[in-house]
Amino acid sequence: MRYSLFGESHGPAIGVVLQGIPSGLVLDMDFISAEMARRAPGKTPLSTARSEKDAVEIVSGAFEGRATGTPLCGLIRNTDTRSRDYEATRWLARPGHADFTAQLRYKGFGDYRGGGHFSGRLTAPLVFAGAVAKLALKERGVEVLARIRQIGNIEDDALDLASPDREALRLAARKTLAAISDERGEAMREAILKAKGEGDSVGGVIECFVFGLPAGTGSPDFDENIESLIARHVFAVPAVKGLEFGAGFDFAAMRGSQANDAFLPSQDGRPRTLSNHNGGINGGIANGMPVVFRVAIKPTSSIAKEQDTVDMRNGEAAKLVICGRHDPCIVPRAVPVIEAAAALAMSELPGVLV
Amino acid sequence: MRYSLFGESHGPAIGVVLQGIPSGLVLDMDFISAEMARRAPGKTPLSTARSEKDAVEIVSGAFEGRATGTPLCGLIRNTDTRSRDYEATRWLARPGHADFTAQLRYKGFGDYRGGGHFSGRLTAPLVFAGAVAKLALKERGVEVLARIRQIGNIEDDALDLASPDREALRLAARKTLAAISDERGEAMREAILKAKGEGDSVGGVIECFVFGLPAGTGSPDFDENIESLIARHVFAVPAVKGLEFGAGFDFAAMRGSQANDAFLPSQDGRPRTLSNHNGGINGGIANGMPVVFRVAIKPTSSIAKEQDTVDMRNGEAAKLVICGRHDPCIVPRAVPVIEAAAALAMSELPGVLV
Amino acid sequence: MRYSLFGESHGPAIGVVLQGIPSGLVLDMDFISAEMARRAPGKTPLSTARSEKDAVEIVSGAFEGRATGTPLCGLIRNTDTRSRDYEATRWLARPGHADFTAQLRYKGFGDYRGGGHFSGRLTAPLVFAGAVAKLALKERGVEVLARIRQIGNIEDDALDLASPDREALRLAARKTLAAISDERGEAMREAILKAKGEGDSVGGVIECFVFGLPAGTGSPDFDENIESLIARHVFAVPAVKGLEFGAGFDFAAMRGSQANDAFLPSQDGRPRTLSNHNGGINGGIANGMPVVFRVAIKPTSSIAKEQDTVDMRNGEAAKLVICGRHDPCIVPRAVPVIEAAAALAMSELPGVLV
Amino acid sequence: MRYSLFGESHGPAIGVVLQGIPSGLVLDMDFISAEMARRAPGKTPLSTARSEKDAVEIVSGAFEGRATGTPLCGLIRNTDTRSRDYEATRWLARPGHADFTAQLRYKGFGDYRGGGHFSGRLTAPLVFAGAVAKLALKERGVEVLARIRQIGNIEDDALDLASPDREALRLAARKTLAAISDERGEAMREAILKAKGEGDSVGGVIECFVFGLPAGTGSPDFDENIESLIARHVFAVPAVKGLEFGAGFDFAAMRGSQANDAFLPSQDGRPRTLSNHNGGINGGIANGMPVVFRVAIKPTSSIAKEQDTVDMRNGEAAKLVICGRHDPCIVPRAVPVIEAAAALAMSELPGVLV
Repeated sequence: MRYSLFGESHGPAIGVVLQGIPSGLVLDMDFISAEMARRAPGKTPLSTARSEKDAVEIVSGAFEGRATGTPLCGLIRNTDTRSRDYEATRWLARPGHADFTAQLRYKGFGDYRGGGHFSGRLTAPLVFAGAVAKLALKERGVEVLARIRQIGNIEDDALDLASPDREALRLAARKTLAAISDERGEAMREAILKAKGEGDSVGGVIECFVFGLPAGTGSPDFDENIESLIARHVFAVPAVKGLEFGAGFDFAAMRGSQANDAFLPSQDGRPRTLSNHNGGINGGIANGMPVVFRVAIKPTSSIAKEQDTVDMRNGEAAKLVICGRHDPCIVPRAVPVIEAAAALAMSELPGVLV
Repeated sequence: MRYSLFGESHGPAIGVVLQGIPSGLVLDMDFISAEMARRAPGKTPLSTARSEKDAVEIVSGAFEGRATGTPLCGLIRNTDTRSRDYEATRWLARPGHADFTAQLRYKGFGDYRGGGHFSGRLTAPLVFAGAVAKLALKERGVEVLARIRQIGNIEDDALDLASPDREALRLAARKTLAAISDERGEAMREAILKAKGEGDSVGGVIECFVFGLPAGTGSPDFDENIESLIARHVFAVPAVKGLEFGAGFDFAAMRGSQANDAFLPSQDGRPRTLSNHNGGINGGIANGMPVVFRVAIKPTSSIAKEQDTVDMRNGEAAKLVICGRHDPCIVPRAVPVIEAAAALAMSELPGVLV
Repeated sequence: MRYSLFGESHGPAIGVVLQGIPSGLVLDMDFISAEMARRAPGKTPLSTARSEKDAVEIVSGAFEGRATGTPLCGLIRNTDTRSRDYEATRWLARPGHADFTAQLRYKGFGDYRGGGHFSGRLTAPLVFAGAVAKLALKERGVEVLARIRQIGNIEDDALDLASPDREALRLAARKTLAAISDERGEAMREAILKAKGEGDSVGGVIECFVFGLPAGTGSPDFDENIESLIARHVFAVPAVKGLEFGAGFDFAAMRGSQANDAFLPSQDGRPRTLSNHNGGINGGIANGMPVVFRVAIKPTSSIAKEQDTVDMRNGEAAKLVICGRHDPCIVPRAVPVIEAAAALAMSELPGVLV
Repeated sequence: MRYSLFGESHGPAIGVVLQGIPSGLVLDMDFISAEMARRAPGKTPLSTARSEKDAVEIVSGAFEGRATGTPLCGLIRNTDTRSRDYEATRWLARPGHADFTAQLRYKGFGDYRGGGHFSGRLTAPLVFAGAVAKLALKERGVEVLARIRQIGNIEDDALDLASPDREALRLAARKTLAAISDERGEAMREAILKAKGEGDSVGGVIECFVFGLPAGTGSPDFDENIESLIARHVFAVPAVKGLEFGAGFDFAAMRGSQANDAFLPSQDGRPRTLSNHNGGINGGIANGMPVVFRVAIKPTSSIAKEQDTVDMRNGEAAKLVICGRHDPCIVPRAVPVIEAAAALAMSELPGVLV
């Protein structure tokens, strides 16, 4: 299964073409809508005031409620666009954004309105594609579940990587702030609102698990290496700046005797390991333990505070005040996006869907 | 430019096929050999005692000292193989290694000796390929330089990401322990020898810079997104378990007002930024600042200490004592490997070499 | 530049996503519409009575009349669908069609109406994509021109492959029957109407030229070999069953001394050849002479005559009478489709657009 | 399964890297050597006098006589090189050859000796790769068999495409001239020797069958369309200038009522068709009938006769007399090469090997 996204924030529509969906997959629209709702803006003071229904029209590849197996195009019309918000600052490179690099890359011909093709809005069709991937994965017993691990300095409870509480993760996914601990979630909410109140934004970390991936899928080659595949998809999500598997950066200060996951005896030929520092992956191949990775999300670049920048027409110094509608913290809405990227990566892995 | 590695640790040879090398590139064999020497084993007590000359025979794609532009195959014969080291423990899954996953993936038909295709030895042709990539990149003004950022709890001095000391990095590359600070390097050496003395191993972090990447190269699409590309190559290197760009995981606790890199006025249409928290990349595209990333390397899985494991034939508990020759810390020799992966990723990026 | 088609004949819409369009390319909608009109059905008794306006909505990748360089999605709504035509014969495999193979491939979940994803209707977005490619190629001095070489037993005049009459080809393209000779075109028309009158259909050959392809583009490798690239695209067009370059199958009976194209002296470093039996390509690389290829198109599979077939539910014999609206000869409308496939193949070739 | 070729005619070695071989495949070296021998030069007056043993060393991806599943590199050393044959004519573009286009493509840095990377010698590793593919296909019940259909004006007997005589094809494959009819084969031999005697060469047509391809494999998409896949591989073989499936170019003069392959009743859900004009493929997908295609091979470009050409250094007219050792007709030795290309194409098709 492969996907290609298209669209601009203030163009006629955004969407995705999905190839390689298993023929006959039931397109459970309730599930798909619920996934879209997890990402949708405008629901709480934590997110942007832009209100998009994000209704997906499936214009191809579906027949009588099922995927046919031919390319499926999902289309989302843009409705609540306020392009005038961007007119005044068209030539001012917003710090942290892709305005300046996009200007160079597309030789000044890009659609600058609302970030154009670089808008976080493109994660809507990504979540749609991810929802279809999840439906396909579910039939193979594979489940992807993420939660907020950290926002600002607030960390959610640690989970045992060797046997994470799957039910707690499912419950967290239904919360506005997908933390395991309600108390920590409340603290995160306050941290976000505090940043918002100060015209600022805040970053965080999302932790994502893949359960049920068959041991032996993957490869050392970068085209099928599970870590390479997840990385390739996850780093294409806006605002992602870091990725680690299992113990990740904590490995640096560990000894081999601590880091190695001791194999446990087993009668069914599928040994478990005592710990899961390797995040379910050895040599790019799934070992049967849960796959675990963590993603660093930078603070939303669009902040209300005045910022120093330059005018892209002449390189001269300028002051920028951003007026559009923006999330003070993108992390809560990014949880289903990271799940989607992981689900799509796993759907691409030979031996999982086919 | 693309590459594919082949070979097994104890097979006849290992090697690489490189496609898309610019026609006429001078294959500076002194430079290539020097790069190979940076990775080669057997030089100090810090590395494995296996002694391989790692002489590369270029069997195609070169003529009269230059790359022709047709596929270049570099071949390295295996000479110092001691396969009997592995016979006794053939069926015991080494914790942290890919023995178990390889057994599943290749249905028991893999070459188990010395880790087979999963051996760190495959990084020799990778470094060779990276050296060729570096020669091609040099002609475009692009330079890749890495250093050890951390081993165990010892950290090297921090560099200013917005204007890292390039000369200091070049100097570090020539040291056995590629740290900027000699004092810190000495402390790292001691940490490694201490772990070795205890029959153990230790992990670390490598920091890598790409200088001179033209602003505007890259794309938001995962096939050409600089972060996705580097990630795809770097996670295919054995022992890599984490990757972060710029401020990386530190973004989580930052505010947008801190994290945003303010643009500075410029007359030449190529603005710089005051800070470089984004690691030279916005929206998957180079912004002209140095690209910076950090890679987490886990401690060598092969340790002298006795470990708990299972016999893969029957799943029963077993004790494992590893006898082969191994590095107590792979980080020093991984520095040129990470540079190679980065150089190859950049060589694949449209607009850099072609 | 790459494309992916989506859609079914009787679904909500058909379309295409185009990636890698040069930023700033002016999307000349008059030209694009004229190209669409060349393929559109319902204009003459030579084609199906289905009447589709084939209006393309560009929903992404365009801004202020130009391509941005981000993925461009062109969408065509299906309007004149008469699905009841297909209901009665849903389970009868139409000889020559993909009904039977699609049934197997998509496990019975495909959209059978009007041939679904296999419908010739999918060539509408292909022609749209080809029109965009032609606009991009035009800026590089590359032009693609095709004509009908043969319908039934009627052959159009032969052209000198070494210096084909480009103006005559341009004129032919504007005719309903794109033959150089009006007299031959008239004979073709009669052959088609005769077949139609007998409830039958007829096949043909299209000859296509690519002018202005820079000498030295292409490669012996199948990913960039010009012949491989054109073949890959052209054989994905429904009803294409043969492809030859230059002298093609006539080479079989030739001697080397005849077949070899003698080089002619030249002062500008770009020699011409006396003849062009190699169709402008040596070793997969353009030699500067016009690229010439011919494509065999089979007779329309849907004919009015009663045919023997089977019921796909039980494999039992059945009689089939096809009632939908169909072309008695697909060749005239296939001319811009083959041009589109060639233009898209050339746009993918490194060194042409980038 | 994918492959990449490397090497030059007069360089140290030529070879291939094969990825995705099924783990555990027995590498039957007798079969592989027999396949190599079918292509090897120097056996009869019909082929070049260059005598290469073409012994393949498998340097990776094999263990204890079986493929491991990791990349397999097969290496063939060049031994009987006589580079001085090419020195004198280095700057004279041989008509029909890739000398001129290679000069442009590789900016003058290519290895010109013996045609370098463009040499027919590169078909040796291709046949090796094809032999491995055939072994893998055999386990799935798929067999590829080709024969000479035509040399010069001499045609071999036609076969019934709906039920070709498989045993006759197997017998033909063992002959020096792989024709079904011995009498026709003898006539072909004479035609070749006659051309040789006149310092000339002659072309031909090869017909290739794929038996046992599972109905339902393939796709309308060019990446998995059987016709596109075979075309992509076959046109990368030197000297191939045409390809047709089933009735191919004969479709042009056919009526739909003749061309359509009527389905025959069947109890096992796998209907046969009465005729096989479509060559076993509808909509890019196998229909269960034998896949049949024909390939046009041009006369060997290297002929003994003096030819007109130019000096590539200055574009001035020159006379060329080619002195190297060459085949007067490449068709006999191309039979296993076309089989190899087809076997490799089929091994790449999803659902065949995996």
